[in-house]
Amino acid sequence: MIVWHQGALRPVEAVRIDPNDRGLLLADGLFETMRARDGRILRLERHWARLSEGARLLDIPLPLDEPGLAAVARELLLANGFARGEAVLRLTLTRGPGPRGLAPPERPTPTLLLAAFPPAEPAPPARAVLVKSVRRNELSPASRIKSLAYLDPILALREAIAAGGDEALLCNTAGRLACASAANLFLVVEGRIWTPSVGEGALPGVTRAVLLDRARTAGLLAVEADVPRHLLARAEEIFTTNAVRGIRAVASVDGRVLAGPCPGPVTRRLQELLEAE
Amino acid sequence: MIVWHQGALRPVEAVRIDPNDRGLLLADGLFETMRARDGRILRLERHWARLSEGARLLDIPLPLDEPGLAAVARELLLANGFARGEAVLRLTLTRGPGPRGLAPPERPTPTLLLAAFPPAEPAPPARAVLVKSVRRNELSPASRIKSLAYLDPILALREAIAAGGDEALLCNTAGRLACASAANLFLVVEGRIWTPSVGEGALPGVTRAVLLDRARTAGLLAVEADVPRHLLARAEEIFTTNAVRGIRAVASVDGRVLAGPCPGPVTRRLQELLEAE
Repeated sequence: MIVWHQGALRPVEAVRIDPNDRGLLLADGLFETMRARDGRILRLERHWARLSEGARLLDIPLPLDEPGLAAVARELLLANGFARGEAVLRLTLTRGPGPRGLAPPERPTPTLLLAAFPPAEPAPPARAVLVKSVRRNELSPASRIKSLAYLDPILALREAIAAGGDEALLCNTAGRLACASAANLFLVVEGRIWTPSVGEGALPGVTRAVLLDRARTAGLLAVEADVPRHLLARAEEIFTTNAVRGIRAVASVDGRVLAGPCPGPVTRRLQELLEAE
Repeated sequence: MIVWHQGALRPVEAVRIDPNDRGLLLADGLFETMRARDGRILRLERHWARLSEGARLLDIPLPLDEPGLAAVARELLLANGFARGEAVLRLTLTRGPGPRGLAPPERPTPTLLLAAFPPAEPAPPARAVLVKSVRRNELSPASRIKSLAYLDPILALREAIAAGGDEALLCNTAGRLACASAANLFLVVEGRIWTPSVGEGALPGVTRAVLLDRARTAGLLAVEADVPRHLLARAEEIFTTNAVRGIRAVASVDGRVLAGPCPGPVTRRLQELLEAE
């Protein structure tokens, strides 16, 4: 495996992350997970916009620009045998090494890693569990950026798996629906498409944004809103979205299987809209 | 600088953290910050208990035991010129490398790092700011362990510094007081000592626990409770505690200077109780 690290392609075995890197010590950084096809990042401009917004919020200087990332991704994909076909990229940006303590160094030297992976295996419809042990904190700006602080979703997914499921649904601190473990959440209720708004704790997902745009352009009713959790019981269809898997239908919630075909007709229609170029 | 990493002492330049380490990628791990004196960790049993509890919650196997940590710390302190006198130790435990995605590997190979630092410089009384941009999430089990997911405290401290302060006070999602950026919070109101309870989002701090024990043994009234934020305005004295700095008096909150001497008489009394062996 060849990765891109601090300006150069290197075998992963040759990459040394400093034990004083604040990404490791304090989750002081960001990431993006992106799909690539034929050497190009899909929806690069949206990923770039989110990464830039996160870097601005955290005040981490970005060591390259958008065309630079496109060029690096192309080289990296080629070096890993993904010049043709599908792949997944993970970009990790940290504030870099720092002295002990929370206060960031005055002149940070950010760490930038880019790694390429085979495309995700197709996943069966999700057996979702509405988790009880952890709430999404919409009262932190970190809920609106793709930060490295991902322990809550890990704890949520562990609870879901322990309960016999394979995906977690999280409420926010107000008890309304927020998101899935590493994906946005959508419900279809009386034919209308609902997704929790960013203020409710939903990450501003790239696939979520594309889907909302295309659904609306196609004349479908799609709203970002407060989504009370009782709507789960009323939903005809439920699905999650992220950049790696696109749309994933939810087959059951807390063991209750949704009526009708899975994926349902609205989910299928949205899959078609999403896959159109 | 010599650090202890995966069973051996090495120069920090020779330590290679894997770019696939889940501590770096997902904040999937824990840490402890401890004081050491004359080659020994202070309050080791309490730090060990908290680390073990965190490792149990996250299901990360601990690669050593309590006497093992004591022995390693002794070697490390000696190797860094801290065989005599004061030092600070940071232990970092992660789940180690894993494949892409949230689901932990079935057989994790944890990463364990121990690093030694000079003792903290004495800090002047804090100019605290009650931050608005971020709330402590008491509705996550991560609030009760010392996890690597430390971005919220970093954001809080940045807000405090931008507002002219040098320490952040955080409310929990219910709007009550929870903690400082990397310390527990205490208020003295009408002679009684208040600190937010763990259920309110306070980390179960080692110094916090020792202080509560000793205060009660000395006959002082010290309570863990829900602490409404309006008590900040009524407090005669305010201070924070952590293992590295012990007690740090708060001189002002949001620019309002507390009346009376700083540190106040109760804070001084508690400092004496804490420093007694």
